[in-house]
Amino acid sequence: MLPAAPTLVIGNKNYSSWSLRPWLLLTHFNIDFEETSVSLTPQGLRDRLQSYSPVGKVPVLLHNSSIIWDSLAICEYISEVFLKNTGWPDEPMQRAQARSLCAEMHSGFMALRQQCPMNVREHRSVEMTEALRKDLQRIDEIWSECAAYSATGWLFDQFSIADCFFAPVAFRCQSYDLPLSPHAQQYCKKLLNLPAMRQWAHQSSKENEVLTHYHVGEIVA
Amino acid sequence: MLPAAPTLVIGNKNYSSWSLRPWLLLTHFNIDFEETSVSLTPQGLRDRLQSYSPVGKVPVLLHNSSIIWDSLAICEYISEVFLKNTGWPDEPMQRAQARSLCAEMHSGFMALRQQCPMNVREHRSVEMTEALRKDLQRIDEIWSECAAYSATGWLFDQFSIADCFFAPVAFRCQSYDLPLSPHAQQYCKKLLNLPAMRQWAHQSSKENEVLTHYHVGEIVA
Repeated sequence: MLPAAPTLVIGNKNYSSWSLRPWLLLTHFNIDFEETSVSLTPQGLRDRLQSYSPVGKVPVLLHNSSIIWDSLAICEYISEVFLKNTGWPDEPMQRAQARSLCAEMHSGFMALRQQCPMNVREHRSVEMTEALRKDLQRIDEIWSECAAYSATGWLFDQFSIADCFFAPVAFRCQSYDLPLSPHAQQYCKKLLNLPAMRQWAHQSSKENEVLTHYHVGEIVA
Repeated sequence: MLPAAPTLVIGNKNYSSWSLRPWLLLTHFNIDFEETSVSLTPQGLRDRLQSYSPVGKVPVLLHNSSIIWDSLAICEYISEVFLKNTGWPDEPMQRAQARSLCAEMHSGFMALRQQCPMNVREHRSVEMTEALRKDLQRIDEIWSECAAYSATGWLFDQFSIADCFFAPVAFRCQSYDLPLSPHAQQYCKKLLNLPAMRQWAHQSSKENEVLTHYHVGEIVA
């Protein structure tokens, strides 16, 4: 028997990088799911999200009357319950390295996150600080080294949760014209051209709510 | 055939909360492993740690000529390779909730981390800011709610990676006399009395290197 379809609670597609990660996993692998959106305004968070999440953050996965309230835990669950564990590389050490990359993203890259908030539909300038340069150097290293070892061009042998975790960075590179080496650029384009990523970008462009604190830097024509 | 023993690279036991998590998992479950220590001084990090980790942080697990460079990824690997997946609860939704708790710890509780750095062998004062109060409220909720549902007093049915992730908080509660509700206090004591935790505390007390930026607040007699 197929498991019941889960519900993914997400924020505004234009802004919510954490929502994108599990949404991309579900969408790329054609898993049947419901989508519920909560506006990331203080009021939206207060009025609606608190009924879903103990920590008041998106994304949240609702399934069989229970909730999972973190993006990485949601991806692990999707892989186990809906993908027969194929959300990660099959070999244990590769899987561990993919999880290390996701964990780096999960707790780090603060300059990239703060200086270049995800804002899919806009093209903006950013000041290249030393902290941002270091974050980008590590992103470039990960994207160019991993993708160079993989025959498919994904970070590991097949599209995995690790690619989902770096997907919002591709939107940021595009929005802020962040400099990348040729190999990293190639990986970035591969992410941006993924059908599920194009679908997310298209849906972002149809949203009209503006959350001003995600709009930093000057608009670039 | 048993897998070869891994090597865990850790920082000073008195200070390194991230090192404690996988060390506790390995030690509590009597897994055979080698331990290598790197002093968390700028020089120690520069001279030794860079040879192990792409991000220059502890802990790192070395196994079969490969490295895993994040605490959560290390615990996942230990559970898969050495514990037949028993590092997590057996039921998928329980496992997802345990992972959500670890992920919260992995990327959050910034006030608790910054205002109450782990310093196992000392007893110090701390100013109760609003941010610290909120972090502690969430810790209290997790410890008292989860442990109330579990027959063993651990966060889930058996001691798991989730308990390892909250173990450094128990040392912090002890060092800074942080206020806890009776149920949360009971869980905290259970963690502090675990043989592997007592072993870590004893070994911390034998270290004599002082890293001044981990010493905040006034010494309490």
